[in-house]
Amino acid sequence: MSQYLSDHVHLGDDLTSVVILDQTLLPNRVEYLTLREPEEMFEAIRLLRVRGAPAIGICAGYCLAALAQQRKDLKPDEFRQELHRLAQYLNASRPTAVNLSWALNRLGKRAHAMPDADPPAAAAALREEAIAIHQEDIAMCRAISEHGLALIHDGDGVLTHCNAGPLATSQYGTALGPLLLGKERGMNFQVFADETRPLLQGARLTSYELHNAGIDVTLICDNMASMVMKNGWINACFVGCDRVAANGDAANKIGTSGVAILAKHYGIPFYVLGPTSTIDLSCPAGDDIQIELRDPEEIKSKFYAQPMAPAGVKCYNPAFDVTDHSLIAGIVTEKGVCRPPYTQSLAALFA
Amino acid sequence: MSQYLSDHVHLGDDLTSVVILDQTLLPNRVEYLTLREPEEMFEAIRLLRVRGAPAIGICAGYCLAALAQQRKDLKPDEFRQELHRLAQYLNASRPTAVNLSWALNRLGKRAHAMPDADPPAAAAALREEAIAIHQEDIAMCRAISEHGLALIHDGDGVLTHCNAGPLATSQYGTALGPLLLGKERGMNFQVFADETRPLLQGARLTSYELHNAGIDVTLICDNMASMVMKNGWINACFVGCDRVAANGDAANKIGTSGVAILAKHYGIPFYVLGPTSTIDLSCPAGDDIQIELRDPEEIKSKFYAQPMAPAGVKCYNPAFDVTDHSLIAGIVTEKGVCRPPYTQSLAALFA
Repeated sequence: MSQYLSDHVHLGDDLTSVVILDQTLLPNRVEYLTLREPEEMFEAIRLLRVRGAPAIGICAGYCLAALAQQRKDLKPDEFRQELHRLAQYLNASRPTAVNLSWALNRLGKRAHAMPDADPPAAAAALREEAIAIHQEDIAMCRAISEHGLALIHDGDGVLTHCNAGPLATSQYGTALGPLLLGKERGMNFQVFADETRPLLQGARLTSYELHNAGIDVTLICDNMASMVMKNGWINACFVGCDRVAANGDAANKIGTSGVAILAKHYGIPFYVLGPTSTIDLSCPAGDDIQIELRDPEEIKSKFYAQPMAPAGVKCYNPAFDVTDHSLIAGIVTEKGVCRPPYTQSLAALFA
Repeated sequence: MSQYLSDHVHLGDDLTSVVILDQTLLPNRVEYLTLREPEEMFEAIRLLRVRGAPAIGICAGYCLAALAQQRKDLKPDEFRQELHRLAQYLNASRPTAVNLSWALNRLGKRAHAMPDADPPAAAAALREEAIAIHQEDIAMCRAISEHGLALIHDGDGVLTHCNAGPLATSQYGTALGPLLLGKERGMNFQVFADETRPLLQGARLTSYELHNAGIDVTLICDNMASMVMKNGWINACFVGCDRVAANGDAANKIGTSGVAILAKHYGIPFYVLGPTSTIDLSCPAGDDIQIELRDPEEIKSKFYAQPMAPAGVKCYNPAFDVTDHSLIAGIVTEKGVCRPPYTQSLAALFA
């Protein structure tokens, strides 16, 4: 379907399994796993072998469809009980990822809407629904990429933080989508990827994806963004988002707000890219977004050959921060680019 | 002499050796090395077992004094020839560290000033000079600490970047000096230490020093500074400096300029602390300071159990950046705090 690892999650040829790229092994090993048992699927999501909210949704849909196909010879009642049980089980793998429950619920509704279908027909319908979720994500990323691409020019320098590329979504991705789409059209960009401590998604995933796509990417430590901007190398910043409040405040990977402040200081436009499903009009402002605090060992010891800080030292390890709407030049969705004032422009998306 | 590892470089009891704490093993192992042979001394400096310009100067002084003491039974002519040869040899261990040649030259001049002294007397004089270098550094750090302490209050939150503590200097250090001195006087601070990628001096050395001194220190990734400031936890930023231009532009560890921009955004005063010897009036502005670019592997693979970025990916790895003088609330030297406009206040230090 694409050269950009958009096939990092797909249904197995036998229709009873799901094949995923194990993202925890990147960039050192490209290894695909075939998931057949419910327990394997659960663990793959829980251990972040597949990650990124849209990608988790796509994976969960395929998992439930594959499990349904395996059980197509059960009696109708047993089949539907099993489906319900398996959906609940998979949903517990990462309770905070909204796309997980959303995808499983969507398949559940599809099954519910055809109460008289025999198990083989129901399993086929679930497969159709799972493929639709994947296809819709591709279309949405494509539309975001088109709108984002209109904001930059051939030869531009672009800085990105964390990973909002194909591995987090489907083909193209969100923040990386305009760069991949532009590359297809013969445009060239100089991309600077923040390594994104502590989990290094920028080093492990973003630089990997862009390098594989033949895009000129330079990896930097997060604390080098100021100097790269000062050098005059950056024309725009592109980042993804996990939740956007009604006033335009945007939660994204920790460090995003710092990049936005630097961009403002150096007069560089800072853009947030994501689907309208991440815009939460019920959340008035960023202060209402709860920030997940994670294990100090991610800072002190993870990835290292030996710990890099004394055992007794405290760490503060927020997974996300909130970028104030006043720092954001535009919020790029599949429906177009919203501009300030966001309270109006975001509401208009849903009108 | 102090509880703060100020004895991390000192003369051995036999007067013919130098004892150093091996900083490359921190924070996992506290191991002291006894350096006796010129080759051991050379390697210790070259491999950064002792680092930080003032600490290197102190170490070099003791090394030459110890080697002189070993050779005190030589004939006077041979003794002086040996001294000259050994000073030249040690000086080549790290040619860019200005304090290294400065300390060795200072001992050389002392020997030169007493041409008729017999070797035992000359060796004693060199030892005296080496101790004087150390004592002067302690006094200078102490004065910087006093001036810096006057800028903060009991209970304040202070953010620091990289390591400018006792391990880089002598007792107290520069940027960490006010915190250590305040602690001695019963004051308490909440210190946030940027881990300082890629070499992690903040994690490995700053958090280690402050934790050992009983100071409340919290380690964060560099990209978390924005959130910590936004949370209202920081009243002042304290950083060291490697070179300050005549207009107040300050070169320091990469990432410092980003911290200064964040501090300005959040209305937090940002202070640079260092001895007047780091102020270079012959350098008009920061653009004239050459920035060292280092090995990409420091970003991609150093410290890790396995590489964290694809082999083919480029890195940009500047060791320092320049903080614009307009972002600096004060430059704290042993002679007092310079305020803007720096062109005048810095020049006045040397008048």
